Amino acid sequence: MQDPLKIIQDYVRHPSISTDPEAKEGMVASRDYICNLLSSLGFKTEIAETPLHPLVLAEREGDSSWPHVLLYGHYDVQPADPLELWSSAPFEPEVRGNRVYGRGTADNKGPQIAMILGLARALEKHPDLPVRITVMIEGEEEIGSPSFPGFLEKYQDRLKQADLVILSDTCSPSIDQVTVTTALRGLMALEVTLHGPNVDLHSGLHGGPVMNPIRALAKLCASLHDEQGRVAVPGFYDTVIEPEAWEREQLAALPQDEGTYKQSLGVPAFTPPEGYNALESIRFAPTLEFNGITGGYQGEGSKTIIPSKASVKITCRLVANQDPKDIEAKVVQAIKERCPEGVRLECRVDAGAEAYCVIPPGKPNTPKDQPAVVAKAFTAMDNAVKDVFGKAPLYLREGGSVPIIAQIKTVLGLDSLMLGLFTPEDNLHAPDESFDLTLMQRGIETYEKVFTELGK
Amino acid sequence: MQDPLKIIQDYVRHPSISTDPEAKEGMVASRDYICNLLSSLGFKTEIAETPLHPLVLAEREGDSSWPHVLLYGHYDVQPADPLELWSSAPFEPEVRGNRVYGRGTADNKGPQIAMILGLARALEKHPDLPVRITVMIEGEEEIGSPSFPGFLEKYQDRLKQADLVILSDTCSPSIDQVTVTTALRGLMALEVTLHGPNVDLHSGLHGGPVMNPIRALAKLCASLHDEQGRVAVPGFYDTVIEPEAWEREQLAALPQDEGTYKQSLGVPAFTPPEGYNALESIRFAPTLEFNGITGGYQGEGSKTIIPSKASVKITCRLVANQDPKDIEAKVVQAIKERCPEGVRLECRVDAGAEAYCVIPPGKPNTPKDQPAVVAKAFTAMDNAVKDVFGKAPLYLREGGSVPIIAQIKTVLGLDSLMLGLFTPEDNLHAPDESFDLTLMQRGIETYEKVFTELGK
Repeated sequence: MQDPLKIIQDYVRHPSISTDPEAKEGMVASRDYICNLLSSLGFKTEIAETPLHPLVLAEREGDSSWPHVLLYGHYDVQPADPLELWSSAPFEPEVRGNRVYGRGTADNKGPQIAMILGLARALEKHPDLPVRITVMIEGEEEIGSPSFPGFLEKYQDRLKQADLVILSDTCSPSIDQVTVTTALRGLMALEVTLHGPNVDLHSGLHGGPVMNPIRALAKLCASLHDEQGRVAVPGFYDTVIEPEAWEREQLAALPQDEGTYKQSLGVPAFTPPEGYNALESIRFAPTLEFNGITGGYQGEGSKTIIPSKASVKITCRLVANQDPKDIEAKVVQAIKERCPEGVRLECRVDAGAEAYCVIPPGKPNTPKDQPAVVAKAFTAMDNAVKDVFGKAPLYLREGGSVPIIAQIKTVLGLDSLMLGLFTPEDNLHAPDESFDLTLMQRGIETYEKVFTELGK
Repeated sequence: MQDPLKIIQDYVRHPSISTDPEAKEGMVASRDYICNLLSSLGFKTEIAETPLHPLVLAEREGDSSWPHVLLYGHYDVQPADPLELWSSAPFEPEVRGNRVYGRGTADNKGPQIAMILGLARALEKHPDLPVRITVMIEGEEEIGSPSFPGFLEKYQDRLKQADLVILSDTCSPSIDQVTVTTALRGLMALEVTLHGPNVDLHSGLHGGPVMNPIRALAKLCASLHDEQGRVAVPGFYDTVIEPEAWEREQLAALPQDEGTYKQSLGVPAFTPPEGYNALESIRFAPTLEFNGITGGYQGEGSKTIIPSKASVKITCRLVANQDPKDIEAKVVQAIKERCPEGVRLECRVDAGAEAYCVIPPGKPNTPKDQPAVVAKAFTAMDNAVKDVFGKAPLYLREGGSVPIIAQIKTVLGLDSLMLGLFTPEDNLHAPDESFDLTLMQRGIETYEKVFTELGK
């Protein structure tokens, strides 16, 4: 078998920033790289065209009586800016200590390769393993997977035959305690621009009667949270389902200390919304975050202007049973009602994503009609993790979003088994993103066991 | 005499952006240009070094019994961005219609040249004119003139001999109705940065307990104005002196329509602070403006992060009798008290500027000890404007700031006679800045009469 580290490094070297129209070359190279790797491992590969970035499909066919597993990953990555905060070039992966650094090492190229190589190892040892596989590696995860629903519709006859989805694009607390993710937050995204005067104005000649768009935007943004840190939009929490007792217990078992966590982030205090402690708020509560704000003079020194406009990028993380369209309507309505006088409001809405929830076998509230292959896969994962890591996984809701998981549930009716193969130390979406090499090895071993067991 | 338009165009061609460390070449070229022009007009020139950008000094000596006038102007200009909004290149001055377009055409290179050429014409016709002149052209006006106080201290023995200052760096309502400015607003500038997590965080993995610096900044900014549009900082208005009755009358005589003004700016409504109408608020009220805000992702599309920091640039325009240091302390105190939990506050204060006020001769409240040369100069200006423009100037407080006017009053004890030679149509500090060529001609004629009269 090829060296997993070398494969990850070669994969990361292609800057596949899906949000950046100028990164087309890196997108194509990254896609070709994973396609060729899957071919070399014996899969029948195919490029599934989409309106934007194509998916890579890879197939291992077999008897219709065999379990059929979909594997998911994404070859696109987040932008790398601010570049000046990286210790080494984001697309020249470098090993320092027991980690490989680079944009995409942890999200999602590293974990994805661990999963694929674990499967490859199982197939190498058991060439006749009675398991059918369809690998789907998409190129739009970091921009909300706009083409994925269309892909699912187009390929649903083939994909619906499967029993479940397996993937690693979620987080574990540490390399010694992995989690199986039982829920993902959904997403709602919009950009608000307030337009004031038609050009930037001299603040001396015009300052007084003119509403400053930054002032108006600050007032608008400030109105979206209350004094208790909760989102101050009417009806925002109406459909939220609070966690079950066993979920709170699993979270309490997390080997995570709030003080250490706070220190690692470098923040002076945590300010979770009322009703949740700091750790609970990530996994059980929805949020409204400002991802970027801009307006007026951006250079050095001062410039005495009233800017002609100001804008803010907003995303909400949603929990299970919150409908992105419903939340979008409520947030936009609140923004319209609260827009200060003297400016003109422009509101651009991006594609949202549903939240998702699955209940593992053997829990008090496991659905009675859970398919046998799903139960077998979750049990195989539980056993494999116990073998490789020396302790059972924790079953936890996750704060992040993998938009396509809920779409797969809706369109194909399939649940997902998600093993967390990155950790909070990995700096996802931030400078100095990295992936732990021990976790890489353990991931490969775990997946080898899961796929071998599924074939029994 | 040389062609005034050609001189202005040649002067504007040098990009003298004092706030930009990379514009050094344009600063030097611009300074040399005005120095050479003054030499060619017969003045004895000299470069007055400062810690940053030197001043140009030009002298016409004479008998100590002659009136001695200081002329003031500045060779530096504002940054030209956003470049994409200019109809022609900001430093390639272009004549369209009856205007010359370019950065600095109106602020201050055009009006400055009109003043100098008016004087030159008077001296050309009356070579023995008994008037002493000291021209001071500085290079730091647009960054708050940090070196000017030091220059005044160093040269005060020479400069204190003068009787008054004459300059044109203020605004008139139109090319048919000019104003003599009786007051200038002061300035207080600061930049507030709120620091949150030590790197940008993934909003899914960390969103909930972490205070978003943009959210904190929005809340802080929103707290700085009340519902009546007034600055919500304790004591902010304590020392403000309301305008005299004749000042309100002069303002009411302005040929300016609020509706037309609003339309020209393209704003849907005016929102002046309670207690002032729209036009009054510019000239009689202090302000707190946000000049620029930044934080988080600035690119296209969305990026689901919690940014590590966010910052805002603030300037206050102050009216006569407000002390910049006192206001600075009050604003910083309010910001400190209101800084939300979960972020760390950094506050950088820039140099402020005093406000200024002079009362023309013949008003009910003119000081009894007003020097004869000051009264003579104001009267000469009144007559010259009546001759050239066909109507008397309006005597008005101005919304803008010329920081050095108050410093000259403090250090040298001299008042300033300010004739407005740009208009609201000139887009100062904004794209497509321009200068009206009729006003240029009238300015030259007016100044010729004023200097000729002063020599009588």
